[in-house]
Amino acid sequence: MSVTVNKYNSGMGRWEPDTRARLEQAAGELYIERGYEQTTVAEIAERAGLTERTFFRHFADKREVLFGGAGALQALIVSAVEGAPTSAAPMEAATTGLEAAGTVFQDQVRSRQRQAIIATNPELQARELSKLTALAAAITDALHRRGVADPAARLAAEAGIVVFRAAFERWINAPHPQDWSRLVRESLAELKAVMEGEL
Amino acid sequence: MSVTVNKYNSGMGRWEPDTRARLEQAAGELYIERGYEQTTVAEIAERAGLTERTFFRHFADKREVLFGGAGALQALIVSAVEGAPTSAAPMEAATTGLEAAGTVFQDQVRSRQRQAIIATNPELQARELSKLTALAAAITDALHRRGVADPAARLAAEAGIVVFRAAFERWINAPHPQDWSRLVRESLAELKAVMEGEL
Repeated sequence: MSVTVNKYNSGMGRWEPDTRARLEQAAGELYIERGYEQTTVAEIAERAGLTERTFFRHFADKREVLFGGAGALQALIVSAVEGAPTSAAPMEAATTGLEAAGTVFQDQVRSRQRQAIIATNPELQARELSKLTALAAAITDALHRRGVADPAARLAAEAGIVVFRAAFERWINAPHPQDWSRLVRESLAELKAVMEGEL
Repeated sequence: MSVTVNKYNSGMGRWEPDTRARLEQAAGELYIERGYEQTTVAEIAERAGLTERTFFRHFADKREVLFGGAGALQALIVSAVEGAPTSAAPMEAATTGLEAAGTVFQDQVRSRQRQAIIATNPELQARELSKLTALAAAITDALHRRGVADPAARLAAEAGIVVFRAAFERWINAPHPQDWSRLVRESLAELKAVMEGEL
C-alpha cells in the first residue's frame, strides 16, 4: 500500500508529470463540455480521479491549468535565444528562440481547444496577453545578456512576439499539422515585407 | 439656482467635459497620494466636489477613469488610417494613423503619472494590454476597409503597436516635450533596421 501512496501522492515523485497531465486533460474536457465559468476545481479533481488538495498542489486556481505550460515554453525560447550563434543579429537570435518552441507545439487539436476556451472568457484572454508580454520581456532580457542594447533588444523581442502570434495562428488553423519552424520563418518574411511596404 | 444645477448636473450639458476632467484629475491625484488600491470612488467624487452618482454617470468604476481616453485615441487613429492616401502601403497607412495620436499626447507630466499608476497594479497593466490589443484589432479592421487582406493587415497593425509603444516610451521619458510624429517615424525606422538585421 505504501508504494501506491508514494506513486500517486508524493509531491515530487516520478508520477508527478502524469498527475499534472491528468488534471490538465480533465480541466480541458470540462471547460469544453460545460464552459470555463461553470466548471469548479472540485469537478476537475473528480474527473481526474484526484483530490482538490492534489489539484492545489499543482495549480493556484482553475485559470492556471490553462497556463501551466507557459513557464516551460518561455524557458525553452530564452535558452535558444541565449544559445544562438554569437554572430546572429538580435532579430535572428529572437527568431531562433521562437523556432525552439516547436517541441511544445505538437498536439494541434489540444492547442486549438485551448485557444477556443480562452476565446470564451475575457479574464483568460487578459492572462494570455500578460503571458505574451512576460515572454517579450524575457526575450528582451536574453538579448541584453547577449550584449544587445535597447531599443534594438526590445524591438526585436516585440517583433518576435508579432511573428510568434502569426505563426501560431497559422499552425493552429492549418488543416494538417505543419512544421513550426517553417511557419515562423514564413511569418518573419511576411513581417519584413510588410515593414518594407512590399506587402 | 436652476442655472447652477443645469450647469453642473446635466447629464449631457455643456459642462460635461469639465465634469469628466475634474473626476480624472481628482482620481489621478488620489491614486498618486494614497495608491490606486486604497482609493475609493467616494473619495474621488468628494475630491472633485461631485457626488458618487455623478462619478458613475461617467465611469463604470475607478479603473475606467484611467482608460477614459482610449476610445477617443482609437477613433483618431482609425480615422487617420482610413484617410491615408490610397497609394499608401499598409504599414504606411498604419503609421499615418499612429502619428494622428499626437493631438492627445500633449501633457507629458500627466501621461507619465498615469503610466506610474498603471505600473503599480497588475489589473491595470492587464487593462492597458487589452486596450492595446483592441487598438491593434481596430487598425486591422481599418486596413481591411482599405482593401488590405490578411496577414498583411494584421501584421501591419501589430507592428504598428510595437512602434506605438516604443514611441510612447520615448515620449514619456524625454526630459523635454518631443514631437510625437517624429518619435513615431524614428521608432518605425529602428524597427525596420532591426527587422533587416542592421540593428
